[in-house]
Amino acid sequence: MTESHQTRRPLVIDCDPGIDDMAAILLACASPEVELLGITTVAGNVSLEHTTRNALRILALAGRQDIPVAPGAARPLVIPAPRRSQTIHGDDGLGGLVLPDSDARPDPRGAVEFLAATVRATPEPVTLVAVGPLTNVALFYALYPDLAARLARLVVMGGSIGAGNVTPAAEFNVWHDPEAAYRVLTAPGLPRPVPTTLIGLDVTLTTALTPADLDTLRRSDGIGRVLADPFQRYLDSYRRVLGLEVVAVHDAVAVLEAVLPGSIQVQPARVTVDTTLGPSRGNTAVDLRAEDGATAEPSTVQVGVAADPRAIAEHLLTRLSSLPTRPGSGPGESAQ
Amino acid sequence: MTESHQTRRPLVIDCDPGIDDMAAILLACASPEVELLGITTVAGNVSLEHTTRNALRILALAGRQDIPVAPGAARPLVIPAPRRSQTIHGDDGLGGLVLPDSDARPDPRGAVEFLAATVRATPEPVTLVAVGPLTNVALFYALYPDLAARLARLVVMGGSIGAGNVTPAAEFNVWHDPEAAYRVLTAPGLPRPVPTTLIGLDVTLTTALTPADLDTLRRSDGIGRVLADPFQRYLDSYRRVLGLEVVAVHDAVAVLEAVLPGSIQVQPARVTVDTTLGPSRGNTAVDLRAEDGATAEPSTVQVGVAADPRAIAEHLLTRLSSLPTRPGSGPGESAQ
Amino acid sequence: MTESHQTRRPLVIDCDPGIDDMAAILLACASPEVELLGITTVAGNVSLEHTTRNALRILALAGRQDIPVAPGAARPLVIPAPRRSQTIHGDDGLGGLVLPDSDARPDPRGAVEFLAATVRATPEPVTLVAVGPLTNVALFYALYPDLAARLARLVVMGGSIGAGNVTPAAEFNVWHDPEAAYRVLTAPGLPRPVPTTLIGLDVTLTTALTPADLDTLRRSDGIGRVLADPFQRYLDSYRRVLGLEVVAVHDAVAVLEAVLPGSIQVQPARVTVDTTLGPSRGNTAVDLRAEDGATAEPSTVQVGVAADPRAIAEHLLTRLSSLPTRPGSGPGESAQ
Amino acid sequence: MTESHQTRRPLVIDCDPGIDDMAAILLACASPEVELLGITTVAGNVSLEHTTRNALRILALAGRQDIPVAPGAARPLVIPAPRRSQTIHGDDGLGGLVLPDSDARPDPRGAVEFLAATVRATPEPVTLVAVGPLTNVALFYALYPDLAARLARLVVMGGSIGAGNVTPAAEFNVWHDPEAAYRVLTAPGLPRPVPTTLIGLDVTLTTALTPADLDTLRRSDGIGRVLADPFQRYLDSYRRVLGLEVVAVHDAVAVLEAVLPGSIQVQPARVTVDTTLGPSRGNTAVDLRAEDGATAEPSTVQVGVAADPRAIAEHLLTRLSSLPTRPGSGPGESAQ
Repeated sequence: MTESHQTRRPLVIDCDPGIDDMAAILLACASPEVELLGITTVAGNVSLEHTTRNALRILALAGRQDIPVAPGAARPLVIPAPRRSQTIHGDDGLGGLVLPDSDARPDPRGAVEFLAATVRATPEPVTLVAVGPLTNVALFYALYPDLAARLARLVVMGGSIGAGNVTPAAEFNVWHDPEAAYRVLTAPGLPRPVPTTLIGLDVTLTTALTPADLDTLRRSDGIGRVLADPFQRYLDSYRRVLGLEVVAVHDAVAVLEAVLPGSIQVQPARVTVDTTLGPSRGNTAVDLRAEDGATAEPSTVQVGVAADPRAIAEHLLTRLSSLPTRPGSGPGESAQ
Repeated sequence: MTESHQTRRPLVIDCDPGIDDMAAILLACASPEVELLGITTVAGNVSLEHTTRNALRILALAGRQDIPVAPGAARPLVIPAPRRSQTIHGDDGLGGLVLPDSDARPDPRGAVEFLAATVRATPEPVTLVAVGPLTNVALFYALYPDLAARLARLVVMGGSIGAGNVTPAAEFNVWHDPEAAYRVLTAPGLPRPVPTTLIGLDVTLTTALTPADLDTLRRSDGIGRVLADPFQRYLDSYRRVLGLEVVAVHDAVAVLEAVLPGSIQVQPARVTVDTTLGPSRGNTAVDLRAEDGATAEPSTVQVGVAADPRAIAEHLLTRLSSLPTRPGSGPGESAQ
Repeated sequence: MTESHQTRRPLVIDCDPGIDDMAAILLACASPEVELLGITTVAGNVSLEHTTRNALRILALAGRQDIPVAPGAARPLVIPAPRRSQTIHGDDGLGGLVLPDSDARPDPRGAVEFLAATVRATPEPVTLVAVGPLTNVALFYALYPDLAARLARLVVMGGSIGAGNVTPAAEFNVWHDPEAAYRVLTAPGLPRPVPTTLIGLDVTLTTALTPADLDTLRRSDGIGRVLADPFQRYLDSYRRVLGLEVVAVHDAVAVLEAVLPGSIQVQPARVTVDTTLGPSRGNTAVDLRAEDGATAEPSTVQVGVAADPRAIAEHLLTRLSSLPTRPGSGPGESAQ
Repeated sequence: MTESHQTRRPLVIDCDPGIDDMAAILLACASPEVELLGITTVAGNVSLEHTTRNALRILALAGRQDIPVAPGAARPLVIPAPRRSQTIHGDDGLGGLVLPDSDARPDPRGAVEFLAATVRATPEPVTLVAVGPLTNVALFYALYPDLAARLARLVVMGGSIGAGNVTPAAEFNVWHDPEAAYRVLTAPGLPRPVPTTLIGLDVTLTTALTPADLDTLRRSDGIGRVLADPFQRYLDSYRRVLGLEVVAVHDAVAVLEAVLPGSIQVQPARVTVDTTLGPSRGNTAVDLRAEDGATAEPSTVQVGVAADPRAIAEHLLTRLSSLPTRPGSGPGESAQ
């Protein structure tokens, strides 16, 4: 273990890959500021089986089969999520991108036990970046509150100040498991609050890559070029559905904030997740005025309110282009 | 009745004045395109007693005691609204502006019977502009569905695509009576749908007056100058609470859209009002994609999505400045 | 007007006939203690068109075409009720019983205006018995709170302390329009509280007619014999679905309580109607302890808790048998 | 290990003692049909600290410090339960009964890990009796679905077909953590359904002990006599609040059903736990008709519908009287 290694911030990513989860994982691999201790997977964009397999393959692509992948919850904490007819991620989660299989096997401990063991065994406080439904994090908080309270920081991609994407009120990660999000964001119940940053859709949508950015990725020597085609398909979909000529990389923005704290401008707020069965189920009601005299409720979370889109895009492109592609690990394309 | 009179669009305003309701009423009085047939009042910003008295006084200020004021619901349709400790409108609703009393008395028929009688008696279809809680409109729809179906158009100021003002999820008018809003916006149950335009907070906040606009009002000879001081206090409040150097005139924007259709840019959408008891109670979940292939639900409402702020401000200033102040009807200031 | 007439309690029945509504109406016609001033109809068991037609025909059968029938709400106050695939009442509401048409026409005023006019015009306070969904009553309370406050009494058949019938938590009348029931039972918002008695399913199910009672009806000379066959079909249905050898006459029990106050044993309680969108929507949460020191909430309603089944059955049979059948008004049977 | 031992059904009790939990634990200790492998504790009647200490002391009283006590969740799964001003259990959970301290310490593994390890290590399928809030069971299901699916049976004391006790709609155990109850009873999400029996308040209230039963307990030589005084205080409380001259032993009934299957008469039903924020939060909506043609939803649970009160009381008295009191382990009384 080198000295520089010792100063890296230990990081775990909880995710449901997903293309933008893939960008998030590769960004962590490409960032010397952090040491990726492991990945925990959760059902979300696609089934747990697929998100776990995808996580293993993404690490293999980056030549990091040494990093453990611990599978977590196969369904939401309380109420099963409604089935969605189709998603942008396709059935397998990577939207047509076919990655070579990995030699590595999932960690037998499971996500929650892995998180507990990792926090226990790591001298420096661990940063957890959660970019899927919060089921695993809620279970970790419920089962191991004392260990969870030792986290250096929790950075979440989820929710929105304003409109959602799955429904008018709800962003996918929170919509998929609002009860877990309530536990983590509204009432964590830990002996010591974990500094938590919530980066919602309204911010990540402003930090999108342009067609020119995708060209840059495509022409690079680094691993980022693998992402160019699936991002292009994403962009085509954005153009068709939203009329936008950009592609958001939601999850990677959360990892960037963990890698370079302060990338996202935040405000303290009280966040109440909507767990009703009504039309706003999964809404993250963000009260930015919670700290002024008007309300007695304490702020629980730092909520992202703004970002410098070009700075973020530049960081992403630079880092994703710097990570070398391993020989023989190049992806194929599905026949679809 | 002159010929020009015959071509004016008949208009009724349902409101809870309120300073921006006052601007809305005066705008209607100053607009030759419409004939203001009456005002119905509802509890909202302040009590029904105050909103009715304020409506009478505002009409007196404009020299229009001939226009009937019919008082409606003193409380929400189903669930009493939580009491708010203080509001921007003050106890009496006009934020310190003291208007001379009116000689006119409230119409004895009440708001719903007035609406029924007016629609029945007016040959041309009536436009209804609702800029307070929707209690009266919901009752009109429930009691007289056949007459309600004859409305030319309903223009509503309420709700928001995105964040609210009373709570993170809810705008005041909808928050005060979500069940009424559900009846009107989500499930009107009329024999023929009434063309409905919903102008939310996200749009009206973009159509604000600047300090320079207030100076213009203040220096004018017209009735608008009465509004300069209370708007200034509003602006001071906006600056303090929201950090903005503008003042929104929500309700007047809805009347302007009724006077000059097309002032607000709209999209068809399905609107589902949140009537749960959870943190998003009063949210207007606006599904702008309701018409594409992804959903089977029909659009019910045209929802405002954009506006030209300067064009709207110019219209407001020109018209409010054109209406002469009646001799002896000038307002005083409260001692507060 | 004879002197005995003057001492009769004036009564209006709000209903959605329905076979047990029919028994309720006939019971009122056969009871000298009350004077039936009118019937208001509401959508519920079947459509408003059917409930209104049935009410007219039931009065014709009793030779009382002079009693006005005023049609009210064709749908619930806020949220349309889910469609039920089939009900015990059949499509027309009388479960196969075909009554001759009536010469009378519906009152043109509509239910709410009829209630207002009747309360205004009747010197003695009027008793209102509501045995369908509470839509009309809620609208009456909302439109005419001052007149509603003059009611002598409101007797409601609806809800349950305990299990429901449409869902595990909800009785039909409340389930069909929970928001209306909330307005009437939980938050009436009247200037003076109306003494209200709520008789739920748990009580009416204990006051059922036996096969022997149906034989008594069938053999009688009075109008009650018309009810024998439809009640028998009800009973067959109860036997099949619930395994009970009895038939409940829910609505008639409420009218009997209005005719002979004290027929039902009551306790003061606070009633909170469930208006959520969850599994208990339409539940009447009855807090019988609301008056002891444990809670600060005042009781709003007298809730039925027990009854003497045989005494009630005897009253029903005696009165329904005493009302003569009009010549030529006998019912037929449907071909079904 | 004797042969008779080998044929005992392995049992774990999840509880929040609580006097009736104490009766439940002692009943298990006194029943040769089962082998009590351990106790897991949960916050409910009182805090986790108190329920764990009480469980340890109850086992010490029975001379069974060898049985492990594993502490579980200190709060509900998602939403913290409202604080109740006072309860029948007192601050410490045993209503004034002071038991000697135990030499044993809590199992370091925690409730969920203990359940996982116990199911894994026990050849015969384990029966789990849950007589507190279902937080631990929900977490066990969520973390270890494969092990949970190996349970022989889950017997739950909770909910009610009909009225509740904490609120008109909700029984305490479900009210305290409705989300956990939803996970366990409505949507367990296990690879194989666990045969589940739900015994609600409506049944346990019929299986109460009489003053004569308490006299029997008091005069016995066995451990049951320790319970006579606290049960007497319970009975005094029942008399005062409910006007009943009996005391229900809810939790012990569930253990008796696990010890002597068939003690409670059951019916298959679909149970939907109310997780809304409305007046019925914590209601167990029990649909007993779920298996007939009327609904498509499969039954998930066997719900208790009746019991033989005297048979159950006799079993309890006989067994509680048979367990010897350990020398020097007698309880004291609090000074209160």
